[in-house]
Amino acid sequence: MRATLVEVAPRDGFQPIAPFIPTEEKVAFIEAAHAAGLRRIEIGSFVNPKAVPQLRDTAEVLHRTAHLPGLDAQVLVPNARGVALALEAGARHLAYVVSASEAHNRSNVRRDVASSIRDYGEIVASLPAGVKVRLNLATAFDCPFDGRMEEKLVLSRLDALLAQREEVEVGLCDTTGRADPEHVFSLVSACLARFGGRTRWAFHGHDTYGLGLANVAAAWRAGIAVFDAAFGGLGGCPFAPGATGNVATEDVAWMFSRMGVETGVALDALVAVANRAAALPGASPGGRVRAAMTASCTTA
Amino acid sequence: MRATLVEVAPRDGFQPIAPFIPTEEKVAFIEAAHAAGLRRIEIGSFVNPKAVPQLRDTAEVLHRTAHLPGLDAQVLVPNARGVALALEAGARHLAYVVSASEAHNRSNVRRDVASSIRDYGEIVASLPAGVKVRLNLATAFDCPFDGRMEEKLVLSRLDALLAQREEVEVGLCDTTGRADPEHVFSLVSACLARFGGRTRWAFHGHDTYGLGLANVAAAWRAGIAVFDAAFGGLGGCPFAPGATGNVATEDVAWMFSRMGVETGVALDALVAVANRAAALPGASPGGRVRAAMTASCTTA
Repeated sequence: MRATLVEVAPRDGFQPIAPFIPTEEKVAFIEAAHAAGLRRIEIGSFVNPKAVPQLRDTAEVLHRTAHLPGLDAQVLVPNARGVALALEAGARHLAYVVSASEAHNRSNVRRDVASSIRDYGEIVASLPAGVKVRLNLATAFDCPFDGRMEEKLVLSRLDALLAQREEVEVGLCDTTGRADPEHVFSLVSACLARFGGRTRWAFHGHDTYGLGLANVAAAWRAGIAVFDAAFGGLGGCPFAPGATGNVATEDVAWMFSRMGVETGVALDALVAVANRAAALPGASPGGRVRAAMTASCTTA
Repeated sequence: MRATLVEVAPRDGFQPIAPFIPTEEKVAFIEAAHAAGLRRIEIGSFVNPKAVPQLRDTAEVLHRTAHLPGLDAQVLVPNARGVALALEAGARHLAYVVSASEAHNRSNVRRDVASSIRDYGEIVASLPAGVKVRLNLATAFDCPFDGRMEEKLVLSRLDALLAQREEVEVGLCDTTGRADPEHVFSLVSACLARFGGRTRWAFHGHDTYGLGLANVAAAWRAGIAVFDAAFGGLGGCPFAPGATGNVATEDVAWMFSRMGVETGVALDALVAVANRAAALPGASPGGRVRAAMTASCTTA
């Protein structure tokens, strides 16, 4: 058994940190994560640098990490302009976000969901061959404005989105961290039953209410094998009040190792990266495994 | 659907705190937990006060909380002397601990497991009618000294223990916090299949590695409906290096409320108790819901 971890700290985790992290430090984090065994890394975003100044150097980060063997570098693209910039910079794996919730989509990208789906369709239709697509469905479980999302609505969003392009990886995102394991199991099972085929599925969880790992375990049990996570438990959505903290990569890697599931991660090396990330000025770190492993080192 | 939460902070949570918590403060915590809807509370331990000075006032705490309507006050008893003291003080619900692991049992009570099982048999044989018994099987999943416990060994310990008395509630304890959800689901399922009958089952989890809620969810899914937890995520076993932090009661209550499972807990009131507990001098608090609810209060 094998699970794939997608390291999102360099994008989702760094994004809300106010003090600029120097480009060489970002590159060093990505090199260290790669050295710890992570191969899929979301290294940045081609978003308007006025909106997210922290990620203004994504093109350079992409360029300076291109030599890492086997690295599958993914970048977030919020719109057609971001796609153009990403392709120009050499990106071969794009992540695009649409919210299931109307209110969250408006807050996030100032467009209604139907327009975002149309934009997405135009974007994927014009991509060069070989460019991979991750489609993130934000607020797939719960919205900071509208609360729990109806499964029927979520599936209808996916109907419309998957009609645009079948060969994608869909990330079901628990944007607020308010999903519970039974909710995750139910929606993932419904998605796999309804779609499947050439679509791959991923789960993107937040640990805001402590349910990050419980939800990853539920998604795994329902059949998902790709998980977004951020070293040090960094992250959070600036547009979702209280949505602090992606599930920590080292916590997910620890859980899978206890379950006998391969992730390719060297936990000690990853914990060292996570500890450095947690110490970044302006960071709001999370996760438990860092402290637990440090505690057992000093007392054992 | 209904789950029962057993609040163990006044025993398992206060026990490792060095500065003495005044008796009236302990009583106030129990009153506040009761007011928040908790009815089963482990209020202390009749352990040698030289070993655990923090709990030397358990008889008085028991006496001063006896008036609380519907309170099912449980006390830990490490041995026959503790049982005598507990009964003398009016306790009607005793918790006794045996470790599945030989090494942990020796470290914890300086006896081999067979002797502890024999002691337990003598104790339960001599109890007055109507006194309830919680039998905690420590290191049911993992031992700080011996690592992962074989399911066969754990079941054989339970064979011997349940032969002493059928009418008990058995607490399967993840003492180290190193159980994973698949392990929990597997052992709980095996226990329910093999025993069942008049035996009730409980799960006692620690959040040391962040798996507290994932494991509670797995135990619930396997059929357990009674869960130990500590407000503020206090706790830890002084004999298990790194085993800090019971799963937080407010986190468990939050998860169950999201899952539509009744616990009888008023979450706002419980979070207030948890915040006070987390601020106790010498405490090592845990859990996520306190911070998440505080964050959303200030930003929403």
